[in-house]
Amino acid sequence: MDKRRKPNPAERRRDLCDAAIHLLAHDGAKGLSHLKVDRRAGVPDGTTSFYFRTRSALLRAVAERLAELDLATLQSVADDGSTARPHQPSPSRLSQVVIQAGTEPQLSRTKARYELTMQAARDPALAAILQQATDAFTKLHREILVQLMPRGGELEPAVVEDLSNITLTFINGLLLRFAHGDRIIDSPEQLDGILTAISTGVLKSSGKGGLTRTGNAPVGRRRAVASG
Amino acid sequence: MDKRRKPNPAERRRDLCDAAIHLLAHDGAKGLSHLKVDRRAGVPDGTTSFYFRTRSALLRAVAERLAELDLATLQSVADDGSTARPHQPSPSRLSQVVIQAGTEPQLSRTKARYELTMQAARDPALAAILQQATDAFTKLHREILVQLMPRGGELEPAVVEDLSNITLTFINGLLLRFAHGDRIIDSPEQLDGILTAISTGVLKSSGKGGLTRTGNAPVGRRRAVASG
Repeated sequence: MDKRRKPNPAERRRDLCDAAIHLLAHDGAKGLSHLKVDRRAGVPDGTTSFYFRTRSALLRAVAERLAELDLATLQSVADDGSTARPHQPSPSRLSQVVIQAGTEPQLSRTKARYELTMQAARDPALAAILQQATDAFTKLHREILVQLMPRGGELEPAVVEDLSNITLTFINGLLLRFAHGDRIIDSPEQLDGILTAISTGVLKSSGKGGLTRTGNAPVGRRRAVASG
Repeated sequence: MDKRRKPNPAERRRDLCDAAIHLLAHDGAKGLSHLKVDRRAGVPDGTTSFYFRTRSALLRAVAERLAELDLATLQSVADDGSTARPHQPSPSRLSQVVIQAGTEPQLSRTKARYELTMQAARDPALAAILQQATDAFTKLHREILVQLMPRGGELEPAVVEDLSNITLTFINGLLLRFAHGDRIIDSPEQLDGILTAISTGVLKSSGKGGLTRTGNAPVGRRRAVASG
């Protein structure tokens, strides 16, 4: 009989999800199967099927694991900013986190997230989990932005909404390029410069907000595509 | 015998690619097969396999078809801008094109492109075709930007490079959000306002360029990820 300590169920689930993240990042959604997760995690065949009966259940667990990892990283930035250094010197930790997300080992998480997002278009339960993570990320991103900007606390909510929407959309595009090996910038200092430039332009152009959709239609809420 | 006019091979290939784009957009990469393309295009079983022997050949043809459709759209914007109205009123046709890309029927092309891009990570020949399209798009985007900006022709190349990189990355992020049903803006006027705000900020922050990687490492060139 095997006398090694058996990992507890929570550890086992986490290890299986981490193996699935690796597979998604390197082989894509088509390269993910319960058996391949078993082999990658070095556990007996059938283990992943025992913990996650269906493919959708496995994908949902992976989405939750990714959200847990990403939010832990982002939360550490918010915590740091809110205590010791409200207005941080360059490079900001926000930019450090984004640049890290484009560099291994975190780049695999970034790639896996895009694979999941594509799957989510056809899996409402998975989409709901990813949307929760997006909403939480959006909220934290906004808090960090306000902390990072001089007199950020005095900005109109609509302006903060614009700044948040626009910089987050830029970061989405940047991470997508990183995921495809296209590193248009390398350093957090460069990203700070760009985010500052964008924010400066948004503040100059729109003292009252309204550049992006705000108010009754929260960012991230899925809505019917307007015709025309 | 069937007496209807047979489409010529070029038309047939185009129809098959258009059916494949629909399948990729609605069912994802896993929903694409030669037989499903036959059924979607309403042609005899085996037709798609006759024209495209392998899955990779089919995906490459779809990438070429998407590039053809997208560049035709974008080229019409550049042509228009360079002749009748060098400095166009709002909304710019660039913004109109981007907003259209987030609205059906063009939204399907946007979604299909993301599916192909994910596949390209594991298919170098496909990646090369998509990269060609990206490079062409980047070049045209830069030309349009210069046309749209007052005194755009007098800007330093490094500044144009920054403006192009940063606005294109924002547009990448915007289209990704559109593909997931997340419409943070609805109108080309809104997009014009945002692109103007971003450009204003970039010009104010960086009169000499250098916010993004330029020069020896062209945008879009895949390079090894820097460690650390």
